[in-house]
Amino acid sequence: MAFRRSVATVCLSGTLEDKLTAAAAAGFDGVEVFEPDLVAAPWSPRELGARCAGLGLSVDLYQPFRDLDSTDPAAFARNVRRAERKFDVMAEIGVDTVLVCSSVSPDAVADVDQLAEQLATVAHRAGERGLRIAYEALAWGTHVSTWDASWDVVRRADVPALGLCLDSFHVLSRGGDPAGFAAVPAEKLFFLQLADAPQLQMDVLQWSRHHRLFPGQGAFDLPRFLRSVLDAGYAGPLSLEVFNDVFRQADPARTAVDAMRSLLWLEEQLPGPAPLPAPPALTGHSFTELGVDGVSGPEVADVLGRLGFTHTGQHRSKPVQLWEQGAARVLLNASVVRPAAAGIAAVTALGLESADPVRSARRAEALRAPVLPRSRGSAEADLAAIEAPDGTQVFFTRTGPEGWPADFLPTGDAGERGAGLTAVDHVGLTQPFDAFDEAGLFYRAVLGLEPQAVTEVAAPFGLVRHRAVTQPDRAVRLSLSVAALRRGGWSPGVPDPQYVAFATDDLVATAVRLRAAGVPLLPVPANYADDLDARLDLPAHLIAAIREHGLLYDSDARGGYLHLATLVLGDRVFFEVVQRLDGYDGYGTADSPVRMAAHRRARGAQGRDPRLAAVTSRTGVPG
Amino acid sequence: MAFRRSVATVCLSGTLEDKLTAAAAAGFDGVEVFEPDLVAAPWSPRELGARCAGLGLSVDLYQPFRDLDSTDPAAFARNVRRAERKFDVMAEIGVDTVLVCSSVSPDAVADVDQLAEQLATVAHRAGERGLRIAYEALAWGTHVSTWDASWDVVRRADVPALGLCLDSFHVLSRGGDPAGFAAVPAEKLFFLQLADAPQLQMDVLQWSRHHRLFPGQGAFDLPRFLRSVLDAGYAGPLSLEVFNDVFRQADPARTAVDAMRSLLWLEEQLPGPAPLPAPPALTGHSFTELGVDGVSGPEVADVLGRLGFTHTGQHRSKPVQLWEQGAARVLLNASVVRPAAAGIAAVTALGLESADPVRSARRAEALRAPVLPRSRGSAEADLAAIEAPDGTQVFFTRTGPEGWPADFLPTGDAGERGAGLTAVDHVGLTQPFDAFDEAGLFYRAVLGLEPQAVTEVAAPFGLVRHRAVTQPDRAVRLSLSVAALRRGGWSPGVPDPQYVAFATDDLVATAVRLRAAGVPLLPVPANYADDLDARLDLPAHLIAAIREHGLLYDSDARGGYLHLATLVLGDRVFFEVVQRLDGYDGYGTADSPVRMAAHRRARGAQGRDPRLAAVTSRTGVPG
Repeated sequence: MAFRRSVATVCLSGTLEDKLTAAAAAGFDGVEVFEPDLVAAPWSPRELGARCAGLGLSVDLYQPFRDLDSTDPAAFARNVRRAERKFDVMAEIGVDTVLVCSSVSPDAVADVDQLAEQLATVAHRAGERGLRIAYEALAWGTHVSTWDASWDVVRRADVPALGLCLDSFHVLSRGGDPAGFAAVPAEKLFFLQLADAPQLQMDVLQWSRHHRLFPGQGAFDLPRFLRSVLDAGYAGPLSLEVFNDVFRQADPARTAVDAMRSLLWLEEQLPGPAPLPAPPALTGHSFTELGVDGVSGPEVADVLGRLGFTHTGQHRSKPVQLWEQGAARVLLNASVVRPAAAGIAAVTALGLESADPVRSARRAEALRAPVLPRSRGSAEADLAAIEAPDGTQVFFTRTGPEGWPADFLPTGDAGERGAGLTAVDHVGLTQPFDAFDEAGLFYRAVLGLEPQAVTEVAAPFGLVRHRAVTQPDRAVRLSLSVAALRRGGWSPGVPDPQYVAFATDDLVATAVRLRAAGVPLLPVPANYADDLDARLDLPAHLIAAIREHGLLYDSDARGGYLHLATLVLGDRVFFEVVQRLDGYDGYGTADSPVRMAAHRRARGAQGRDPRLAAVTSRTGVPG
Repeated sequence: MAFRRSVATVCLSGTLEDKLTAAAAAGFDGVEVFEPDLVAAPWSPRELGARCAGLGLSVDLYQPFRDLDSTDPAAFARNVRRAERKFDVMAEIGVDTVLVCSSVSPDAVADVDQLAEQLATVAHRAGERGLRIAYEALAWGTHVSTWDASWDVVRRADVPALGLCLDSFHVLSRGGDPAGFAAVPAEKLFFLQLADAPQLQMDVLQWSRHHRLFPGQGAFDLPRFLRSVLDAGYAGPLSLEVFNDVFRQADPARTAVDAMRSLLWLEEQLPGPAPLPAPPALTGHSFTELGVDGVSGPEVADVLGRLGFTHTGQHRSKPVQLWEQGAARVLLNASVVRPAAAGIAAVTALGLESADPVRSARRAEALRAPVLPRSRGSAEADLAAIEAPDGTQVFFTRTGPEGWPADFLPTGDAGERGAGLTAVDHVGLTQPFDAFDEAGLFYRAVLGLEPQAVTEVAAPFGLVRHRAVTQPDRAVRLSLSVAALRRGGWSPGVPDPQYVAFATDDLVATAVRLRAAGVPLLPVPANYADDLDARLDLPAHLIAAIREHGLLYDSDARGGYLHLATLVLGDRVFFEVVQRLDGYDGYGTADSPVRMAAHRRARGAQGRDPRLAAVTSRTGVPG
């Protein structure tokens, strides 16, 4: 089934000109035009209609008309006059449906028959002009606040030009049951607005106006909602109506692509033939590439060596080194970071093992992910690569003699210096402020990874939100984070740190080896272990080891998590080494404030930040 | 009465090192140490105590201990063990009071006698060590959520080492009545935490954790609250405990000064001898200075001339021009903007007419406002000047033959070209993201201007918050605004525009003259007047004038507001001309989305932004 896809102009930032351009470029078929956008636009309504037609967009809804009904006859008469004026505007634009919201005014009509009569009066006038009214229950309407109540009014009014607009937010935020839509005749389902949202404890109006998300980004069951509406016979466009403070100020071209991706994902959840290439299984992290330069490269290489990695391969034609330990592989790429000698080090690419790299790339392309030109990759093998919302390249690989490792000439070093690191456990990627929700949907839709719950941590330089994406077998894990407002610009510390976490089966033994090898480990304050000991009933030997080696410890309902971090290398990358006990499934984010404060302190002690004086430290890690 | 002033480390951004430094520099006497700050600190508890002593800070409270009581005896035993460990830490720090919050756990004790017994058990142990417990009702506590309930428990427990912590947020957010404090014996009032907050409709925990403000910044009646606590005999420190997402990431040195200012302001509201020089009356805007350069200066001067201003004076020694029309005076200062030829124009100083400029400056200094060196001013008269949070200079002036105009040599131009502009109505200043709440308190405390309600507008490039500060006679008005998240960085339009609004008694007549004079007026879309006409019952002649002259129209409960804007001059300044009808008391902020979209469009049409193509426009202002 092919759906018409529409987006409300209120989803996008900018002027109406910006919004229409963005919606058309992302491939939408139509738009809902939000009245304030038209009021501020330079075009007459007729010119707007022509402009949309020129961009290949239909205008599917004019929205909204507020507070139509009134217990005050004079006020209702004024509202009817206003409606007639808006019908004039609609006729000029060439849009036949107007959204009328249930009134939030104190003079809203409570009596359902009087309300039906007033709506019928206006709907008759609309009908005479070939227009129709889609009536929607706002979740905070004075008297009509549920979809059932709005249907009751529409049913009683019984006018052909009056039907329902169903909005997933208004229904699901109030716990409404989409199963009930089946009782509504298909011809009364005039319009459908789709929005997801996180599950928040707040006033429903504030929740709706500031925190809506595109389908697949929040906590609502949009697939079930949409199935219920379609099963009831709805045949109009799937239209997104998302009020979101971040999207309101983000690049509308990006937001429109994000919006389109959310509909493609949602449509795929419907029963029937799959509209997209299915996501191939991802079976692990094949490599993690760090972009380095002439200053940071030798520093990172030195630390990898001390961590027990071996420089096993050199790229045939590019300045890229392959470092290996167990199944953990790191590429140091000296060709992607600019300027070349600023001491920059950053995660620039993820290699993910795919059961079908070509299909992975085809799916990504179908979901509007930017596909990278082949020459951009660090390897010469026929690698399919895409760009994630934070700019990280994602390569779909198959590791083996015929795969990407063939691009590397062996150095001859056999690598007997391992420190117990077995694989990449996860990669921690700081997201640009505007890209956090987009990223969750990107990994979900494009790669088939499931976003986990969003958590928020009060970190030293501001609130930080975390959300991991992973899959049931946990072979690939990414930990995404973002500053909830912005990272304190006053802080001279590390900007937006990223990290690569390596797994070990015995962190205590590994820590002994890393210390002996001179790995620049992050000092952890002794107060941390004291507090752990006061809070938790940990075995004495574990507390002793945590103290001795400066480890961090988190726990969830399943088990515990031991981890340690290195100092920051270059400007923004560090390594973690982690051990999961008894199926712990988190990422140690509760420890991140301690880690961030220690990184800031170490930065000062390293003399990397002249504004920071070295402070006397009492830590668990000597030297 | 001299109060000890304290601030909780949770109010400030950064590591504990940063926070203590900031608190000491702002002149606080003590701190509440928040446990996570200590856990992440490099000092042992004893070292922390010594560090504080070295900075002249006492540690007044260790906070908090959560979920102490439990219906599960084993859990309670663990909690007692944890408390004993924290008593060890407190003894080392040298702090004698710990905050214990009412439990939010499902296993919290409901029975008030059992709860009193558990608290008494722990308080006895504290007492034996010379420590004491301040028990506080969290507004979202499982069973104890009001201060009355917490007092009931403390009273029943009847242990000397157990008393109350009163927190203004927890009391006032639940509508608690401070008058009841009188019933509590003074020796049971162990601690006082002060926080203001905006009146928000949201879950009280979220409200408390993210949106608290310093006293004088929000909607709570802190003066009455504090009087009630003092009348009840409280003699401990006045301590600020403010959880705020913005402050969490703002420069702690600035936040600490803001915090100190809030206490100084609050103390001044108490009955008794005035602790600060009283704010002298401000009787008007004496001048508004624009910093210009070699490119923007001639452009702004040209527009001032077309607006009917006369270049009446030239500064004796500096490149500063005085332009006048009626009581509206604008200085163009070519010495304050750098680089000198980048086309920058910005509001750099406000001259405010003070009944006592010297006392105005003394008050400002007492309230920790940065006092500017005299040589920094644009005039040579003995002008007292301070710096506002956004960097704007504020001069306290007396306009007259002996005042600041004496620094200007008359140009001899008599200025007969007026266009009906009578005075500066208000100045619109965009605030830095971190400085919005600080600015409200700054103008309130330092200048005696009253902050008005905060309003939020969905503008084209993101949400914008507005708050005016003014005084009862409205002789001085400033309209402050800030991007709620950040201004869409994708937009190539005007960054952070500021403006100066001039008053006229007849905007229609003025508009005719301005058009004839070739003022670069902002074109307003014709849709705007069409929508006004559909929404409001405006007289036909008024709608016709709005259409003909491209005016904007807002209204409030009192009257209407006609206004127009020029194009942006230089990079970020424009002028408005406004007429207030029937006592309208707002600033036309509802029209700002239309204005911003038009400015963006005009920017493209002017060729000032190569990324913007000119768009066909149908506007009310020809040519």
